[in-house]
Amino acid sequence: MKRIKAKRLLWVLLGMAMTFAVGLYAQSEPAPADPSADIAITQYAIDNFFLFICAVLVIFMQAGFALVESGLNSAKNTVNILFKNLMDFSVGGLIFYLFAYKLMYPGVPGGFFQWGGFFLNETGADFAPGPGVLHPQVDFLFQVAFAATAATIVSGAVAGRLKFGVYMIYTALIVGLVYPISGYWKWGGGWLNVMGFHDFAGSLVVHAVGGFAGLAAAIVLGPRIGRFSPEGKPQVIPGHNLGFATLGVFILLIGWYGFNPGSQLKIVGAENTALVMLIAVNTTLAAIAGAVSAMAITWFLYKKPELSMALNGLLAGLVGITANCDTVSNGEAVIIGLVAGVLVWAGVKLLDMLKIDDPVGAWPVHGLNGLWGGIATGIFGTDKDLVVQLIGSFSIIAWAFVTMLVIFLALKYTIGIRVSREEELKGLDIGEHGAEAYHGFSFYTVE
Amino acid sequence: MKRIKAKRLLWVLLGMAMTFAVGLYAQSEPAPADPSADIAITQYAIDNFFLFICAVLVIFMQAGFALVESGLNSAKNTVNILFKNLMDFSVGGLIFYLFAYKLMYPGVPGGFFQWGGFFLNETGADFAPGPGVLHPQVDFLFQVAFAATAATIVSGAVAGRLKFGVYMIYTALIVGLVYPISGYWKWGGGWLNVMGFHDFAGSLVVHAVGGFAGLAAAIVLGPRIGRFSPEGKPQVIPGHNLGFATLGVFILLIGWYGFNPGSQLKIVGAENTALVMLIAVNTTLAAIAGAVSAMAITWFLYKKPELSMALNGLLAGLVGITANCDTVSNGEAVIIGLVAGVLVWAGVKLLDMLKIDDPVGAWPVHGLNGLWGGIATGIFGTDKDLVVQLIGSFSIIAWAFVTMLVIFLALKYTIGIRVSREEELKGLDIGEHGAEAYHGFSFYTVE
Amino acid sequence: MKRIKAKRLLWVLLGMAMTFAVGLYAQSEPAPADPSADIAITQYAIDNFFLFICAVLVIFMQAGFALVESGLNSAKNTVNILFKNLMDFSVGGLIFYLFAYKLMYPGVPGGFFQWGGFFLNETGADFAPGPGVLHPQVDFLFQVAFAATAATIVSGAVAGRLKFGVYMIYTALIVGLVYPISGYWKWGGGWLNVMGFHDFAGSLVVHAVGGFAGLAAAIVLGPRIGRFSPEGKPQVIPGHNLGFATLGVFILLIGWYGFNPGSQLKIVGAENTALVMLIAVNTTLAAIAGAVSAMAITWFLYKKPELSMALNGLLAGLVGITANCDTVSNGEAVIIGLVAGVLVWAGVKLLDMLKIDDPVGAWPVHGLNGLWGGIATGIFGTDKDLVVQLIGSFSIIAWAFVTMLVIFLALKYTIGIRVSREEELKGLDIGEHGAEAYHGFSFYTVE
Repeated sequence: MKRIKAKRLLWVLLGMAMTFAVGLYAQSEPAPADPSADIAITQYAIDNFFLFICAVLVIFMQAGFALVESGLNSAKNTVNILFKNLMDFSVGGLIFYLFAYKLMYPGVPGGFFQWGGFFLNETGADFAPGPGVLHPQVDFLFQVAFAATAATIVSGAVAGRLKFGVYMIYTALIVGLVYPISGYWKWGGGWLNVMGFHDFAGSLVVHAVGGFAGLAAAIVLGPRIGRFSPEGKPQVIPGHNLGFATLGVFILLIGWYGFNPGSQLKIVGAENTALVMLIAVNTTLAAIAGAVSAMAITWFLYKKPELSMALNGLLAGLVGITANCDTVSNGEAVIIGLVAGVLVWAGVKLLDMLKIDDPVGAWPVHGLNGLWGGIATGIFGTDKDLVVQLIGSFSIIAWAFVTMLVIFLALKYTIGIRVSREEELKGLDIGEHGAEAYHGFSFYTVE
Repeated sequence: MKRIKAKRLLWVLLGMAMTFAVGLYAQSEPAPADPSADIAITQYAIDNFFLFICAVLVIFMQAGFALVESGLNSAKNTVNILFKNLMDFSVGGLIFYLFAYKLMYPGVPGGFFQWGGFFLNETGADFAPGPGVLHPQVDFLFQVAFAATAATIVSGAVAGRLKFGVYMIYTALIVGLVYPISGYWKWGGGWLNVMGFHDFAGSLVVHAVGGFAGLAAAIVLGPRIGRFSPEGKPQVIPGHNLGFATLGVFILLIGWYGFNPGSQLKIVGAENTALVMLIAVNTTLAAIAGAVSAMAITWFLYKKPELSMALNGLLAGLVGITANCDTVSNGEAVIIGLVAGVLVWAGVKLLDMLKIDDPVGAWPVHGLNGLWGGIATGIFGTDKDLVVQLIGSFSIIAWAFVTMLVIFLALKYTIGIRVSREEELKGLDIGEHGAEAYHGFSFYTVE
Repeated sequence: MKRIKAKRLLWVLLGMAMTFAVGLYAQSEPAPADPSADIAITQYAIDNFFLFICAVLVIFMQAGFALVESGLNSAKNTVNILFKNLMDFSVGGLIFYLFAYKLMYPGVPGGFFQWGGFFLNETGADFAPGPGVLHPQVDFLFQVAFAATAATIVSGAVAGRLKFGVYMIYTALIVGLVYPISGYWKWGGGWLNVMGFHDFAGSLVVHAVGGFAGLAAAIVLGPRIGRFSPEGKPQVIPGHNLGFATLGVFILLIGWYGFNPGSQLKIVGAENTALVMLIAVNTTLAAIAGAVSAMAITWFLYKKPELSMALNGLLAGLVGITANCDTVSNGEAVIIGLVAGVLVWAGVKLLDMLKIDDPVGAWPVHGLNGLWGGIATGIFGTDKDLVVQLIGSFSIIAWAFVTMLVIFLALKYTIGIRVSREEELKGLDIGEHGAEAYHGFSFYTVE
């Protein structure tokens, strides 16, 4: 190179330097730090906060179930039912923590059965916070509440005659084995998920599992004494506290605002926000439509509107919309609810005809309407396949019903599952727990 | 151009290229994308999340009303009251969805009566997400909960004697016509809003409408049998479950944290955040001050502090602060609550003197203190006009009272609104629903 | 300068101009405004929203206490217990607003006793919104709920025999003096905080203060008539409504999701989000472990699982984890809960042996397990000093116990604290309030 070229290079470098100098002056203050990390961590906080609140609402549903189930049963079995609802959450929660959470979410997609090991990822060592990411702890909290819901549905169906110890064994088996396995099929990424089966918040995964497990238990147990006359005519055994039952239904409704909207798992992002709100309104509309149609039927048929049927109608609407609340319109939600309210009545009548005693209507509400939720998804859902919905729905139902039937039969012919006739007549509160729910109150009957 | 110039141009281009290279190196990562859209969508998520949770809390108030109203009445009317609270939410909710929501929010400001058509905007096609913007679905959810609140206030005033079917007709009319029209006057942007009337969360729009509708109903119905002696002396008909009543009041308090703070409609932005928190504390202080003054009065006058009056005092404080919680100081909130607690006692005495039977004190709590809330806004509110407050308050009250008086009179002289004497004595639970709330319990009296 | 040099300068300027032109083109839109203020205000909204919801959950605990305490007592004292729970929140809340809030948070660190003046900072004049900053109003809301919790624990221990007026005086003293002073020691930045004592959400500051205040009151009051036989044998006086008790425990559990996670005071920031979620799960696991171990003990010892002990076991687990939920692992939370469930049973037995009548087990649940929470923090907590924990725990306990003992003794020998024998037998509902909780129901005994 010649010297003259080096000189020209110097001039060019001078131009570059001045360009930088002017650029720096034009900026006049330092460029803002990249805010994307700050925004990401903010969005992460919101999504986790959202799921935390939803989890709390779902846990509140335990109180709702305890009140509905005890309120719709005889006073003499109240302590027993309350106790079951307390302990399926407690025992079930520990089991879910110990090993069942990773049976449902093993982290291996596509199969029938997988297990990811004990406990859960508590320190979050291998996880990176960010938008749409859930902290492992809040994910567990939300999931354990769902597991407890599936378990506690059964306590209504077996009220008044199942041994308390057997209920504890049942709880361990449904939370530790039955629920997480079919739950894995869909929500853990298993074969039903791969097939395209849609069950948004668990009409099948949670409610039908509980409802059909309850049906299996009710069949194996047989009806309560006096529930059917010697001629086979159904006899009403009225609930003892409709205030509890109504409060329980309102609490369940409130809890469902965690159950369904929370199942979107995040709220940040225009589409997520919109879906959460659509889900909330669809949930509401199906619930109230279910209450209206169930009330209307009893009013029309018996000339007197029946509170307990309307309460179950509201719950039926909630169960029916649970699978599809993210994929139907408001108007379709109303239709799904109206049908659910009719189905719950029909389901109660069907059980009466079959002489199956389900004291609170756990199967009509959670079983039959869980199935309806799965089917309605195929009918009304956007881009949903009815055949796939039927396969998925009946697979989960068959799994829950058959395994629980086997379990209850095995328990029946080994340790026995039913309390003595004497204890049943006197009430399980005295027999199983040596306690009365309403000490000091007079009753005009043993109930 | 000479060849030498082309060469120089190359040198210049080299300078530019190096400038870029050095610039890129200095940045070391690409310039941040504009984050404002990301922030906007995050703020949008928070505001909608906030209103969603507030809506859930307001819906929970249905349970509170059900418990307060049934607990403060006779056991024999419990099923009936619970059922009314369930169905005004259900039937009312469907009606609000079908057409009444757009009667309250027609999107046309300034008038007396407008209608925006059926259903609601569910897809959000013509709406742009952003900070402070509410998704149409969550707005509906919040509003339908308010409509149900206005409706359900009446069920307490008519307890123990109104036909259930008539209550369903009433519900359809108040939610479908009366409430949304006066609601439009203020919150829909109608004439009262244009005039500058302030009713932040509905002391008038919601509570006084319900309270004065209940007063109209109570007048047309007449008192329960035995409520006044043949000489016209008021006779106490005690509530049957003060546990329910107290729990109901606590649930209403909790629900009010959605009712009042939620009425700010957004929480993002330093001013919004501050207002939500001020509203929450003012709501609390007025509530507890109302409980304290109502208790103090009964303690002073009757030498024994009265629970049911203190419970109503707390509710009265809540109603009184509802219109003005955003515009008064903490100290003023305490004063508003103290006055409300006295007013609720005075209102109960006034009704006794007038021989009007309002079994739960719906008018003293929601009607009289709704009016007090409107007036207190004029007295204590920043830049609020007392005359405008009086005009607005009495306009809404007159509208609700007169229309409902006409409606109940029309129903009375056509289909009849009161159950038979026999049914009333036996209780509406048996008469209207063929059910008992407390099956198995012994009662020492028909009540 | 030569002409040729000016030419070269032109070339350089051309290079600069083109560099800018290309740079502007590359940017294609103006540089974003600095978004940091917008992000900060968004994060501020979230943290305040989070604490607001947590405060509402904690306030809901008042309903839980009212139900647990009344449900576990005789029907004849129900109105009295409900009333106490209503008024300690109301009277206590006003006192906390008037002067006690600034006794707990005087803004002067390191001492034993400080006072910051009347009322609270309501306009936020001297405060700057930003990430992690709490608006003074929401901070007050959260704190007043904690103060009410400490106060209301005692109402269970004194049930069935304390004069209502004395309870009002006690409430004023614990909320106005005892609780805020020891609260200042730790949370207000006083000497225990300086020493490094750790009590995250108040096992000691709230629960042990309430539990040991209750113990002092129970000792001074003496047992209810018939609670111990003439030979000194403990006699069970059963609760009258285990439905209320169970619902109350579920409501307390739900409220605790505000109590513990809320005590992190913020949720934005990866570490805060993670801690809130860890705290929520630890709280759950300790609660259910407490229920399981308490149930197991009664099942093993008495052959019948006891509901009320399991309920208290769940609460005991909650109290035990409260001090350390932020600093232990999930597995340690389970252990803390299991031990708490055993301790609550042992505490009940110990009180029986000492012939102290604590009708709902307020001391075993809140006092003994509050202490356990403080000690467990020293055992399991990361970088926590067991000796410091013991000093802090016993300091707070001694303060609460001794001051309240003096107060109750002073009241006993001046105005008298116990209702008459006749009134006690008839029930405080009639004696103190001229009301029945369950009007119309028949009772087979005076209780």
